[in-house]
Amino acid sequence: MASESDIPDLPAEITPQSQDFGRWYIDVVRRAELADYSPVKGCMVIRPYGYAIWELMQQALDRRFKATGHVNAYFPLFIPESLLLKETEHVEGFAPQVAWVTRGGTEELEERLVVRPTSETIIGTMYAKWVQSWRDLPILINQWANVVRWEKVTRLFLRTTEFLWQEGHTAHETAEEAQEETLRMLAVYKDFAETELAMPVVDGRKTESEKFAGAERTYSIEALMRDGRALQAGTSHNLGQNFAKVFDITFQARDKSLQYVYGTSWGVSTRMIGGVIMTHGDDGGLILPPRIAPHQVVIVPISRGNWKETVLPKAVEIRDRLVARGVRVLLDDRDSQTPGWKFNEWEMRGVPLRLEIGPKDIEKAQVVLARRDLREKSFAPMEGLEARVETLLAEIQQALFDRAKAFREEHTSSTTSWDEFRQIMDGRPGFVIAPWCGTAECEARIKTDTQATIRNIPFGSETPAGQACVKCGQPATASAWFAKSY
Amino acid sequence: MASESDIPDLPAEITPQSQDFGRWYIDVVRRAELADYSPVKGCMVIRPYGYAIWELMQQALDRRFKATGHVNAYFPLFIPESLLLKETEHVEGFAPQVAWVTRGGTEELEERLVVRPTSETIIGTMYAKWVQSWRDLPILINQWANVVRWEKVTRLFLRTTEFLWQEGHTAHETAEEAQEETLRMLAVYKDFAETELAMPVVDGRKTESEKFAGAERTYSIEALMRDGRALQAGTSHNLGQNFAKVFDITFQARDKSLQYVYGTSWGVSTRMIGGVIMTHGDDGGLILPPRIAPHQVVIVPISRGNWKETVLPKAVEIRDRLVARGVRVLLDDRDSQTPGWKFNEWEMRGVPLRLEIGPKDIEKAQVVLARRDLREKSFAPMEGLEARVETLLAEIQQALFDRAKAFREEHTSSTTSWDEFRQIMDGRPGFVIAPWCGTAECEARIKTDTQATIRNIPFGSETPAGQACVKCGQPATASAWFAKSY
Repeated sequence: MASESDIPDLPAEITPQSQDFGRWYIDVVRRAELADYSPVKGCMVIRPYGYAIWELMQQALDRRFKATGHVNAYFPLFIPESLLLKETEHVEGFAPQVAWVTRGGTEELEERLVVRPTSETIIGTMYAKWVQSWRDLPILINQWANVVRWEKVTRLFLRTTEFLWQEGHTAHETAEEAQEETLRMLAVYKDFAETELAMPVVDGRKTESEKFAGAERTYSIEALMRDGRALQAGTSHNLGQNFAKVFDITFQARDKSLQYVYGTSWGVSTRMIGGVIMTHGDDGGLILPPRIAPHQVVIVPISRGNWKETVLPKAVEIRDRLVARGVRVLLDDRDSQTPGWKFNEWEMRGVPLRLEIGPKDIEKAQVVLARRDLREKSFAPMEGLEARVETLLAEIQQALFDRAKAFREEHTSSTTSWDEFRQIMDGRPGFVIAPWCGTAECEARIKTDTQATIRNIPFGSETPAGQACVKCGQPATASAWFAKSY
Repeated sequence: MASESDIPDLPAEITPQSQDFGRWYIDVVRRAELADYSPVKGCMVIRPYGYAIWELMQQALDRRFKATGHVNAYFPLFIPESLLLKETEHVEGFAPQVAWVTRGGTEELEERLVVRPTSETIIGTMYAKWVQSWRDLPILINQWANVVRWEKVTRLFLRTTEFLWQEGHTAHETAEEAQEETLRMLAVYKDFAETELAMPVVDGRKTESEKFAGAERTYSIEALMRDGRALQAGTSHNLGQNFAKVFDITFQARDKSLQYVYGTSWGVSTRMIGGVIMTHGDDGGLILPPRIAPHQVVIVPISRGNWKETVLPKAVEIRDRLVARGVRVLLDDRDSQTPGWKFNEWEMRGVPLRLEIGPKDIEKAQVVLARRDLREKSFAPMEGLEARVETLLAEIQQALFDRAKAFREEHTSSTTSWDEFRQIMDGRPGFVIAPWCGTAECEARIKTDTQATIRNIPFGSETPAGQACVKCGQPATASAWFAKSY
């Protein structure tokens, strides 16, 4: 992102969203210590607080992968050039943006290696060796890994040269099974985004021009950020027999004939962290959904007089009670900072719930609970505090989802008129649903004219009979969701 | 490890240890489907069964790291050449064995990048930016990552061009704290190896010639494999102020003076999986300690007649009972294989405990339990089966540790005579404890003559007064543990 000496100092203040959303985003990422620029161009450092969010995301995804029968494995970082070149569409899609290893130790390599931008080719090669019979199918493997795509313009979490992700790669006996798997994993992503990240998403199919290089069909989940731009938050690809034919992944079928497997692949990355920031954050900084918050509750003892003898022991007791219930709690007992400073700090860093406790509260056997999302304070009796906290965390999780969903609905319009389409895209940002003829030409022209792309064709979106393409007026084949996007 | 077309077929049988230990090892790794060769020279594929072991190791280590106050983060895969070149010893140690990225996308890079062989340099650069005051210390960060060291001769898990590991990197206010941290993490590694892997280890200090390039002091844990060769299973380095001075990691001390931090780094890798295989395995194949076995129990229903109606439901019930208690259970209900085939298969793949159940067992309300380590069968009543299984798993874990420890003791000799030293090293392999004068010259000569290196100087090893170096006869300064090693 910057050379070593270039790494800018931390911003003193967070820029308001209304003033400069892009600046606001970077300020939040850096001030909340989620990530930082590194001395390597285009590569970021994920700091402990940001990485803790990623760990919680990983756990939530991994649980779902295993519950749907998948296992994890690990494949090499490097891919020989000849392997990458085998699949024509794939190489055209990825070759311009890979990093090349040309030297190992003290020697020039006979064959250059690419640092994996994605692993279909290396994994396909192994599947060809592991699959013999229909009995070996399905193969349901996921990999947690780093990948590298050489990017010209980068932005912390959203687009970096190296990023962390998971990539699922499966092989099946039939086309039907592969399609089921593709949609199953898209549904897993949607459930993950909405349940864990409180991020409502639109699930649907990508157009031909937006699909993965080498896939038959690509599906995505798309979220709407608070600046009205869409973020592709996860993709699931039905690869058909494309990679199987190129990498010769064959099996003896039940009828003894030799067949190619049907493949899928699907991935979600650290980009999701950027999505969370831009879905929920406000001018005060980050707002984290409780389910992925490293600290769900921060306890701030009111530090006056002999607070270490009076207030602190009570704060410790409360922390221990909450931790015993499985709540992630941070007790901020630093001497060096005032309670007011801590309030601001943890609000900026998005902790969902703050618990304040001072001498008067102890007298009254109560604490103060402050919600980050509403910035609302209330008193809660010490007795039954665990249940109160758990209820509040669940309420915050739901409230964040509801608010994001309401925001998306307010920022989604429908139109059949090209003039109106342009007008909306020029003014109020968000999704625009419009009929489309299905041609790449119209799609491209709309993009040139308005910067809007088709995010996807949502499932169940019917094309009303007799509707005409918003651009060319020919009969529409789909109701597409358009937006400017990240 | 091999080019694509070179990947050899699976061995039909496992070579006996006594015939060729190296062959036995590779046969086990491949037949048990722990890892496979890849089309990328020197790089392996960790297959799901091997990766599941790694996941259990990761959890056991990560728990210990967090319990000792560490947090995880992620730093870039690439390191600019200029950064690597800053620390003289470090670059001499690593430059000959790194992979070089010279091209990104369609352009030659202005500055070459190395794929990280270890991350002291890139992490040091960031710490220099993050640390200002003594209040920012200590920094206790760990990273789970892949690293690359260009190797000429590779062996699955033990030495590969790319491997997975964790690397801890910490920064402290004082030399004492850094030393405490270095030893704390070595103790964590020892506890992990002995408690989780049932692998007894010798902990001690490395000699000057064996220490990490750039460290002040290196400590290691060393295990003994069943062929009598030692395996370095984990290292912990006290970096002193070396990297701090080179990367300018300074802080304002309590007395307002500007000071350099004291650093440590420590790492454990997928090599540990190789260590487990060679510590416990026998001619039947793999033997896994229950605490890191992906399947602690395999249930094999005796499949005769209408077993799917009679035996299988009971097997399912038992599985569910055990899973509810947190036991990792696989029910092998495949139609395509006989019970006898399954017995062999899961023995070869090292499952600690096999549970057999057939119609007669159901009549008698019992099951058969077969221990992998002793190859001993016993009956167990259906009632109270959970407790019986848990007890047996704990017994197996302990028995494996005891057996490995007894083996190490049988294969550890002491001598003060050079003739005897040579004789032992020529014949029965294992550790030899011998007095050493402390010079690199003697250490090197002993290596040339016998291939044995000093594994470490164990803690608490006293140098008996008046002893002479086993090689040169000068006064000894330490009792060193020698062995041929991986």
